[in-house]
Amino acid sequence: MAVQTFQLLILGSSAATPTVKRNPTAQLLNIAERLFLIDCGEATQIQLRKYKARFQNINHIFISHLHGDHFFGLPGFLASMHLLGRKNELTIFGPPSLKEIIQLIHKHSDTYLSYPITYIDTQHKTKELLWEDEKVEVYSIPLQHRINTTGFLFKEKPLPRNVDKYKLEKLNVSIAEIHKLKLGMDAIDENGHIIKNEELTYPPAKPRSYAYCSDTRFFEALANDIQSVDLLYHESTFLNEMKQRANVTFHSTASQAAHMAKLCGAKKLLLGHYSARYDDLSEFLMEAQPIFNNTDLAIEGTLFQVEPII
Amino acid sequence: MAVQTFQLLILGSSAATPTVKRNPTAQLLNIAERLFLIDCGEATQIQLRKYKARFQNINHIFISHLHGDHFFGLPGFLASMHLLGRKNELTIFGPPSLKEIIQLIHKHSDTYLSYPITYIDTQHKTKELLWEDEKVEVYSIPLQHRINTTGFLFKEKPLPRNVDKYKLEKLNVSIAEIHKLKLGMDAIDENGHIIKNEELTYPPAKPRSYAYCSDTRFFEALANDIQSVDLLYHESTFLNEMKQRANVTFHSTASQAAHMAKLCGAKKLLLGHYSARYDDLSEFLMEAQPIFNNTDLAIEGTLFQVEPII
Repeated sequence: MAVQTFQLLILGSSAATPTVKRNPTAQLLNIAERLFLIDCGEATQIQLRKYKARFQNINHIFISHLHGDHFFGLPGFLASMHLLGRKNELTIFGPPSLKEIIQLIHKHSDTYLSYPITYIDTQHKTKELLWEDEKVEVYSIPLQHRINTTGFLFKEKPLPRNVDKYKLEKLNVSIAEIHKLKLGMDAIDENGHIIKNEELTYPPAKPRSYAYCSDTRFFEALANDIQSVDLLYHESTFLNEMKQRANVTFHSTASQAAHMAKLCGAKKLLLGHYSARYDDLSEFLMEAQPIFNNTDLAIEGTLFQVEPII
Repeated sequence: MAVQTFQLLILGSSAATPTVKRNPTAQLLNIAERLFLIDCGEATQIQLRKYKARFQNINHIFISHLHGDHFFGLPGFLASMHLLGRKNELTIFGPPSLKEIIQLIHKHSDTYLSYPITYIDTQHKTKELLWEDEKVEVYSIPLQHRINTTGFLFKEKPLPRNVDKYKLEKLNVSIAEIHKLKLGMDAIDENGHIIKNEELTYPPAKPRSYAYCSDTRFFEALANDIQSVDLLYHESTFLNEMKQRANVTFHSTASQAAHMAKLCGAKKLLLGHYSARYDDLSEFLMEAQPIFNNTDLAIEGTLFQVEPII
């Protein structure tokens, strides 16, 4: 059975001021060939080209908040999709004022896009289902930052049960009845005999999930919204030595990100949103791994696969 | 005698859609250690870092028009100067709506910059003196594009006459009298004798000038505003094969840029603002040089010195 894609490409890992090596925040998530762009810092369109992403296939963009390092690449990206002839609708999820900013820019540049945009306003008070189709659902989750900010939780929907092809070949079962087996129901073969579901099927892989949490201070209640997530991206702007600065600026340390991963029962943690003051990122791992071992670094161009658990 | 700096650094050479190799338009001009940023396409701040420009020394930014590839890097650049603790005033010259866009972005991100910005509105009807100090003057010049657009003309002010140090050493002349000599006046030595200016001085280098013309269609009247300029940057979005497309989009071809250089009596021509459709830029030179020989290509990271003519 072909495994459904679930992978995350890091486009930018830097905090507010980019460096020559690190771009501001942006990530491209692919679940079952749906491409979700998460935040869109300056030069995201150049990063997408660099890593040869099929950017006209992005139909949903999620903006966490209106600090520039999370959306200053959006106007240019929208313009390039237009100039390259996009026709398909694009949906942008973000704070209500985002629409006002983009529309003002389009007004003064006399721009009429070749494709329609639908803006969906996010709110940062409660967890909310933002979007779903038959395979994926996306929630906004409240974060705690200096301005209204949401994270995003992406979840696969439950997969159909797997039907044992070898056993099936020996029986006369219609396509309609096979569909019932995949949904967990019993079936009837062409001779009218009942086939028990458990005789012919085995359980599907567990639905996978990804939680994106940037920017935020550490707060315990977040764990409730992202329980048992497979992959957790939690910002770590600072190391613990700068904990005081993290508090004041509503950011987190690597140690706090690791505590959150432990608290919510994540399977893997990704750190990112590193302050420009840090050159050597291995210190982030050294701080986080004693608390939560399965920790990795978000670095531009790195692709993280979330493997299915059968 | 130390020669006053006059050099242009290319930060971006691409037309509307950037490529992996080419960034959207931005240039850094240094005249007598005044740093002028001309246009500010997306990722200009990253380019400034890459080429190790002292970007906190930029006190004047000139935005030609409000198409995104000429100013989408400005919000991020303003934010980074703030985050890195800038205190000095910054002056931004550009279309009136630029201020509205920047202020709306700052409002919704709850940003209060650490330094003051003065916005000077440009108009695109007539050539106008925008700014001057004791060494440099800057004019806006009307261009013809789809939306209101100005070019910019940067000129050194006339330099003082050079005083012959060897001859001066043999005479008793006060500093105040030397100053008069530099201004072209006669002086009086400490014995009361008149020293004729031409006996002790020789002419200064001719003031140099740089004209920035992007984006614009070709139109002859432009030559009047940039007569005898030392260095002319004239956009060449297309090759002549796409002349029709250039007309429709209010852009120019390499051949038209070369005709403008000839018409205005420029000493050197720089081409740039290349459409993403062109990979091999040597074709631009091949088209322009038969018309105007001293033509070069604007390419990211290239530094063009304007040499003084003594």
